Amino acid sequence: ADVKKIAVLAGDGIGPEVIAEAEKVLKRTEELFGYKFETEHALFGGIAIDERGTPLPQDTLELCQKSDAVLLGAVGGPKWDNNSKELRPETGLLGIRKALGLFSNIRPAVIFDCLKDASTLKPEVLEGTDLIVVRELTGGIYFGEKFRRDTPNGQEAVDTCAYNVSEVERIARQAFEIARTRRKKLASVDKANVLETSRLWRETVIRVAADYPDVELEHVLVDNCAMQLLRRPSSFDVIVTENMFGDILSDEAAMLTGSIGMLSSASLGEGSFGLYEPVHGSAPDIAGQGIANPIATILSVALMFRLTFGYHDAADSIERAVKNVLDAGHRTGDIAVDKSQAIGTTAMGDLIVQAM
Amino acid sequence: ADVKKIAVLAGDGIGPEVIAEAEKVLKRTEELFGYKFETEHALFGGIAIDERGTPLPQDTLELCQKSDAVLLGAVGGPKWDNNSKELRPETGLLGIRKALGLFSNIRPAVIFDCLKDASTLKPEVLEGTDLIVVRELTGGIYFGEKFRRDTPNGQEAVDTCAYNVSEVERIARQAFEIARTRRKKLASVDKANVLETSRLWRETVIRVAADYPDVELEHVLVDNCAMQLLRRPSSFDVIVTENMFGDILSDEAAMLTGSIGMLSSASLGEGSFGLYEPVHGSAPDIAGQGIANPIATILSVALMFRLTFGYHDAADSIERAVKNVLDAGHRTGDIAVDKSQAIGTTAMGDLIVQAM
Ligand SMILES: CC(C)[C@H](C(=O)O)[C@@H](O)C(=O)O
Ligand SMILES: CC(C)[C@H](C(=O)O)[C@@H](O)C(=O)O
Repeated sequence: ADVKKIAVLAGDGIGPEVIAEAEKVLKRTEELFGYKFETEHALFGGIAIDERGTPLPQDTLELCQKSDAVLLGAVGGPKWDNNSKELRPETGLLGIRKALGLFSNIRPAVIFDCLKDASTLKPEVLEGTDLIVVRELTGGIYFGEKFRRDTPNGQEAVDTCAYNVSEVERIARQAFEIARTRRKKLASVDKANVLETSRLWRETVIRVAADYPDVELEHVLVDNCAMQLLRRPSSFDVIVTENMFGDILSDEAAMLTGSIGMLSSASLGEGSFGLYEPVHGSAPDIAGQGIANPIATILSVALMFRLTFGYHDAADSIERAVKNVLDAGHRTGDIAVDKSQAIGTTAMGDLIVQAM
Repeated sequence: ADVKKIAVLAGDGIGPEVIAEAEKVLKRTEELFGYKFETEHALFGGIAIDERGTPLPQDTLELCQKSDAVLLGAVGGPKWDNNSKELRPETGLLGIRKALGLFSNIRPAVIFDCLKDASTLKPEVLEGTDLIVVRELTGGIYFGEKFRRDTPNGQEAVDTCAYNVSEVERIARQAFEIARTRRKKLASVDKANVLETSRLWRETVIRVAADYPDVELEHVLVDNCAMQLLRRPSSFDVIVTENMFGDILSDEAAMLTGSIGMLSSASLGEGSFGLYEPVHGSAPDIAGQGIANPIATILSVALMFRLTFGYHDAADSIERAVKNVLDAGHRTGDIAVDKSQAIGTTAMGDLIVQAM
């Protein structure tokens, strides 16, 4: 059979622990469905800084480039927080996105029935919430020119936010395509009453919309969106927005589900290649204790199967297994009501593998 | 007595209706406390575009400049949404902030006991929430250079975000001063792992902090703050942040209180001068029906008394009156559980005036 090559970047903190469980799921998928995966690990993030002096070593990047997909754990931790910019884990993250052309970050925010109570929102408000934030990932103020200069009022720092028509077009198209497979509603978020990039964004989205007459488009100002996510989360289907707004809104959306330890994400470029990772971070405070929740990473594998490989049978199997294990009452510490009944990372991974 | 001059900009939509009630409160304050106010109305926003061809006529600005404070209703509406930039109400808003040097926007987000159920957050999460967002208002990407240029990838739009040390220093100092009068906790929000302006922001805030050893300072990344506001709103005291982040976070914070029809705001510069307005917008959908909630505007008058005039007795009286009227069960439509029992704008204003 066709062997799929997966670059595995375990990263820092709980990264290696949750990645180990995801790899068990890959192995089980081979046994059950006959698919073949070749995984290769590489250094990335803080550990790469420690061992190689850079968060994104050249051979790690090359491994990713010759792979069909990348599975990422998490990066970062207090150890590297005060490093200079080139020696910080997030610089590796920004670098890999840009180098691999991953212009689109897809973050489903869904409610897990068994975790409804974990949200700080009222259950009746949350009811039916199932949205995806599509965030532009390689443009905007993240990648614009940055500098300092002296002025009579002390040093001045400058960041530049730029978007061109093709950058907006490709992310808009992708969002419309995703909306088409769902409830056919797209909210494009900008600050067109203030920003020139937002005005270009809005004009371009409106032009692209002509090709998707079946999708209902609304324009929402970013400040209003931050409010509406709280007021009527279930009314959103797909939200598309630029890099910085997407960073903020996707985290807000993730948190309101109450399921942040369970959410997966995909970063996509042209073609089927993608990088998959849990939404949660490296959680240095609980690293090495064997108590991290591996579900978000396991569900990131399912997302990889769907979006990069088209292995919907295996993705279904993983998602069903997760649901069954949760329905049977098993919980890691982060999602357990009775913490004394919580199971560890490995036990959770094993249960899901068995349930597949 | 010392006569305080107040420029009144009623604006658009429900603006004139809620302003009328706030003016009754001013009059009642004169009777009860012996203070003297001289109010003068001027055109601002959409109505100024219609009648004078610009959202911020020169004589309106001059009136504000020679006044002690400005009371603003609300501006904007669909009628002007598709106008060119110079003919849009928000251009007037940005213009007046800059021209009057209002570098600081203060937005208290508090929970009204009687409105606890109006929030989409669980009451136990909301319990004790009482925070203030201090937003920098005349710098950042709002006021940086903006332009378009042609590129091989189609037109490109550019926005520039700049901050200098003195701009950060003055807003940081103000936030520390406010924190000092409260629970002595300041959260400074930035994106220092990506933006140069944020790194300058953080360095400067840390330097200013040396003068406020009694205030506990934490640095929160903007994406994380969007999450923490949902997860632990009551743990925040004062939040200080730059213009764009403040726009988003202050709206999120306002919405989570469930009391958005009740929240007031102040925009301050050097000295005691300030512009006061409700957090809510012009609500064109209910304009002219006499059903708008005037409480946020009335409480903006109380905030003006506190921050610009130092009339704490009168401010107390207004705030107590609002509380008593609400405790007695009176509600406008937006906050009524039983809409059929709702009272109108004028009736609510009258009740508050009587209760003062
Ligand atoms: C770590 C940081 C640079 C990164 C970002 O802002 O993109 C993170 O917040 C994310 O959302 O993946
Ligand atoms: C209308 C708009 C320009 C304005 C802003 O973004 O500052 C508004 O959202 C606000 O917060 O006062």
